[in-house]
Amino acid sequence: MIIVMKAGATKRERDEVIKKIKELGYKPHVIHGTTRDVIGAVGDERGKVVLQSIESMQGVENVVPILKPYKLASREIKKESSSIKISDNVAIGDKDIIVMAGPCAVENEEQIIEVAFAVKKAGAKVLRGGAFKPRTSPYSFQGMKEEGLKLLAKAREATGLPIITEVMNPENAELVAEYADILQIGTRNAQNFELLKKLGQLQKPVLLKRGMSMTIQELLMSAEYIMSEGNQSVILCERGIRTFETATRNTLDLSAIPVLKEKTHLPVVVDPSHATGNYHYVAPMAFAAIAAGADGLMIEVHPDPERAFSDGPQSLVPKKFALMMAKLRLFAEVSDRTL
Amino acid sequence: MIIVMKAGATKRERDEVIKKIKELGYKPHVIHGTTRDVIGAVGDERGKVVLQSIESMQGVENVVPILKPYKLASREIKKESSSIKISDNVAIGDKDIIVMAGPCAVENEEQIIEVAFAVKKAGAKVLRGGAFKPRTSPYSFQGMKEEGLKLLAKAREATGLPIITEVMNPENAELVAEYADILQIGTRNAQNFELLKKLGQLQKPVLLKRGMSMTIQELLMSAEYIMSEGNQSVILCERGIRTFETATRNTLDLSAIPVLKEKTHLPVVVDPSHATGNYHYVAPMAFAAIAAGADGLMIEVHPDPERAFSDGPQSLVPKKFALMMAKLRLFAEVSDRTL
Amino acid sequence: MIIVMKAGATKRERDEVIKKIKELGYKPHVIHGTTRDVIGAVGDERGKVVLQSIESMQGVENVVPILKPYKLASREIKKESSSIKISDNVAIGDKDIIVMAGPCAVENEEQIIEVAFAVKKAGAKVLRGGAFKPRTSPYSFQGMKEEGLKLLAKAREATGLPIITEVMNPENAELVAEYADILQIGTRNAQNFELLKKLGQLQKPVLLKRGMSMTIQELLMSAEYIMSEGNQSVILCERGIRTFETATRNTLDLSAIPVLKEKTHLPVVVDPSHATGNYHYVAPMAFAAIAAGADGLMIEVHPDPERAFSDGPQSLVPKKFALMMAKLRLFAEVSDRTL
Amino acid sequence: MIIVMKAGATKRERDEVIKKIKELGYKPHVIHGTTRDVIGAVGDERGKVVLQSIESMQGVENVVPILKPYKLASREIKKESSSIKISDNVAIGDKDIIVMAGPCAVENEEQIIEVAFAVKKAGAKVLRGGAFKPRTSPYSFQGMKEEGLKLLAKAREATGLPIITEVMNPENAELVAEYADILQIGTRNAQNFELLKKLGQLQKPVLLKRGMSMTIQELLMSAEYIMSEGNQSVILCERGIRTFETATRNTLDLSAIPVLKEKTHLPVVVDPSHATGNYHYVAPMAFAAIAAGADGLMIEVHPDPERAFSDGPQSLVPKKFALMMAKLRLFAEVSDRTL
Repeated sequence: MIIVMKAGATKRERDEVIKKIKELGYKPHVIHGTTRDVIGAVGDERGKVVLQSIESMQGVENVVPILKPYKLASREIKKESSSIKISDNVAIGDKDIIVMAGPCAVENEEQIIEVAFAVKKAGAKVLRGGAFKPRTSPYSFQGMKEEGLKLLAKAREATGLPIITEVMNPENAELVAEYADILQIGTRNAQNFELLKKLGQLQKPVLLKRGMSMTIQELLMSAEYIMSEGNQSVILCERGIRTFETATRNTLDLSAIPVLKEKTHLPVVVDPSHATGNYHYVAPMAFAAIAAGADGLMIEVHPDPERAFSDGPQSLVPKKFALMMAKLRLFAEVSDRTL
Repeated sequence: MIIVMKAGATKRERDEVIKKIKELGYKPHVIHGTTRDVIGAVGDERGKVVLQSIESMQGVENVVPILKPYKLASREIKKESSSIKISDNVAIGDKDIIVMAGPCAVENEEQIIEVAFAVKKAGAKVLRGGAFKPRTSPYSFQGMKEEGLKLLAKAREATGLPIITEVMNPENAELVAEYADILQIGTRNAQNFELLKKLGQLQKPVLLKRGMSMTIQELLMSAEYIMSEGNQSVILCERGIRTFETATRNTLDLSAIPVLKEKTHLPVVVDPSHATGNYHYVAPMAFAAIAAGADGLMIEVHPDPERAFSDGPQSLVPKKFALMMAKLRLFAEVSDRTL
Repeated sequence: MIIVMKAGATKRERDEVIKKIKELGYKPHVIHGTTRDVIGAVGDERGKVVLQSIESMQGVENVVPILKPYKLASREIKKESSSIKISDNVAIGDKDIIVMAGPCAVENEEQIIEVAFAVKKAGAKVLRGGAFKPRTSPYSFQGMKEEGLKLLAKAREATGLPIITEVMNPENAELVAEYADILQIGTRNAQNFELLKKLGQLQKPVLLKRGMSMTIQELLMSAEYIMSEGNQSVILCERGIRTFETATRNTLDLSAIPVLKEKTHLPVVVDPSHATGNYHYVAPMAFAAIAAGADGLMIEVHPDPERAFSDGPQSLVPKKFALMMAKLRLFAEVSDRTL
Repeated sequence: MIIVMKAGATKRERDEVIKKIKELGYKPHVIHGTTRDVIGAVGDERGKVVLQSIESMQGVENVVPILKPYKLASREIKKESSSIKISDNVAIGDKDIIVMAGPCAVENEEQIIEVAFAVKKAGAKVLRGGAFKPRTSPYSFQGMKEEGLKLLAKAREATGLPIITEVMNPENAELVAEYADILQIGTRNAQNFELLKKLGQLQKPVLLKRGMSMTIQELLMSAEYIMSEGNQSVILCERGIRTFETATRNTLDLSAIPVLKEKTHLPVVVDPSHATGNYHYVAPMAFAAIAAGADGLMIEVHPDPERAFSDGPQSLVPKKFALMMAKLRLFAEVSDRTL
């Protein structure tokens, strides 16, 4: 941690800061500058937040953290990229790019089985579908709940595809974990720390979506919550951040991929459907995500988007999804990946 | 809902949209424009999301919602401003401006009792203090939990001040409700719909903080979640939104106050401590909030900010808090309010 | 400048950085940390950008600037607040709060004279009006140009109010300066460095509006451009920044006021009309701006907003403006200011 | 334009709006809804801004524009994609992907000639280099000005590469146009309407960079400014927008590519160097841009980034640039493009 003193800070103020640094168990190291002093506080980073409080001392301009606040998620701790095993045949983070596809919400048995076969045929490796749905409006369809989980399990049985579905409440995390192969934490729960801790205590892979206004560092801190409880199987998902632009629902931050690849060993997937909110833009952004180095994709596919209970405008019909997958394979190949 | 057709849309495409609008139980109404047609869909707004799905039909440019998606929170439904009763002497939303003050986290009995008396003396009407703390890092102090609730209750007994504290998990909402007079939903849980529903089922006033990247409309939709479960005692709290500016921790959106006053009957309070993240800026923003029409404030006060377990840099010492309150009283008066 | 080395950086990489720091004329100062080294580079800040380039060296994690990049605008250089003299009776930055009011665009002689008398009567000290208009669309009204300047001068003659109007092009800066008492740089030109330099060479007060996505530090850097050319009479104007919120046209960042008051000696005014884009919200935000410590306001007033050539929805009619001013006077008084 | 009336609007208020719509030369068309009325105003869109002013009338909730405000830039007007001819061999917007590469600033003859040959060898088709530099700080290197233009011309003579360089001031637009093959408008001048108009009057291709907080629609409006003055040769450039994320300098909005491809016939290029601000991230984002459908790229290349006068951290050395180009060729091929 670096403490920057104000230009006119007195010797006495500086000495108070040095005293406080020592009190907190750090070793102070003063650099006398031409217009102001800077004090390095060397030591173990536990208690860091208390150091931040030095900012309220007289004569202090600001406090600059040097160390990254995450550890288990950091590539400094684990240099090789992690591969998260989902089922006997599927792992995320290896050479194989994993496409997770399916409807926004499970609506009925015919729909989910039909989509499951269609996405499998096109090359998807995981079936996605919401049973518990986080909806902005209390008056919107809230999902089929456990009934939806059962239908997902049927679709898995029929197709062999592992399934991913969202958990919204620590209270039914175990219930969802009984059915699902990957537990998804949605954007709006990305800093629901109680939920993060709960899923950290289960031994199921977790797909953690980036919050709408979450920095990359905060995303890694949320991953750290899960990992520090004992579950190392975390998959990160970029799904668009909130900006002033309204032509797309969110702004897909693809530069997060190389940044994350540098900072963490965890795999990174991208959800272009929620990011753009418009099926026209899904395929180009899927290609771009793979070109930028993503390990996988989440894609919404619905047989009849005009009738979808939710997110119709951003869903691909199975035929368009298959066309996209065919072209995606070419992008995977030139990226030295398989699909 | 207004459906805007593309410039070159065919008659057939338009007819398909009209057919779909009728199917969904709305009455279509076409306006032939000079370059494109626009179709109004008149009818009850249930099923709205399905209408949004029309966006995926051929020839449709986009779909513009006309009605506001919230009802119970709307001033159209309830014209007079709501007053939320907290205790025998305290209500939020009346002429009296309510200041809620206290430390970010309850740390020990001496601290909370000392602060409680200090803020009461200066004119605060509610004691704030965190027992369950949402922290970005799993390695930071997570709060004293139930022990903290007990200390808050002691402070209430000693001072007579009602208490507000945060609920993070539906599982312990009842526990917190046993102790607290107001249940706080934090920024990171502002779209934790399970928690919103749970607090909607309790009969305790809820203070709902705006999410970091939440629009005003989404804030009202989250209030609607609580209200649609039966709990009408919702207090809205502006606490800064996330922008590109880094000179303050967040950007306090004070224009949200007159916007909310126009759109909803619910009271609005402001938290300048979390918004700015710097105690120097708290007083001017508190004055500004009252001048803009806020019904109350939440202010962090700590006897020894340098030693605070969290949020030291943004906490006022009791003496500075008292000075701020004295000046705040003048701003309340010229706003035709009392303090 | 602080250079943070990577966790695994070699001694050789560190030595290369130290060598480069010396080469560039700085004195290196190494702090050995528990997991990584940090190197302070002490010396005069000229050539700073070159130091930033050290970020591309092997083993370097990142480079953290310590000094503020602005000087003339800084309160470190000039402790007392600046007062900018506009005319014999008007100065901005003193105890007196200066309200600048008038229409978005000068439309004709009757309009500008009528408004000028109305705003003067209500207590405005400066008349605002656009002659050269920056419009998002090339098909919108672009202003009356020099004819508009002449009408503004007539209004000044009639009322005695000094006038402020926008300069959009270095080529006609002198022309505008012949007529105007304050030269305004608009939001979209806030980093038009050629225009900044040009106005820095004239001896007329400049009102510099914050760019839509400009940080406070960048605003001060733009002020520095003007000041470093010789013109110290710069007034800063907060007018809303661009965020995701759409309920208001921009998000008025009132916390910029205390931040600017801390960092610079230059006066700060606020434009609530452009910030909110809606006349309903102008008065509360004007009150809040004064409560937060602003030195003045810019307010759009139009006798017939429905017929305004531009910005009708955000303009107050003279009667509402007068009501607002009466109440504003009370807020000025409790802020120890006059109006 | 759609005028949405308030829920409780009176018949009289509605009649006033209808009267005003007719006065302004539009045809009103009322849709009676269940809770409120909506009025369509049919007619030519000139005078649109005046219609917006209806928002200030009694009983009006808000006004929703239907038509896009740009025409010449719109794909509705011109369905086939535009190809902008740069030189005998180079056009932007055809099958061939055009890479423009070179240093941020021209520093001396050796540097620019060396880089020009290096980027040509690796496959770049246009040489970039700044002679007039927009710098946030007045104390930073401001470019070699006309001397720099002469060196660029020498490099063109030596290599045959056409050159692109920035124009910052209408006053020297002709001067720059004498030397350059493409005139660049920088991010900070993207709404400098005087500069846009000036370049619209010259007959040289213009590369228009998106402003840091500019919506896609505003970018097209700025293109419209140039085109409405007579110059149809406009190339759009996505270079990152400003968001809360600080891990990259800006957030590269690649979804702007498919959105622009849908809305306009103008070619779109991407600048990953300025967007990310870090040379590590340039190659993946370049690949992603091509995968998303971009027509070209702008890449910063510097032989010695540690010594660069500006933007060293984001510049590739020639060797890394050549490696990137080799891989980029593969992405171009699977995108059915050539490089």
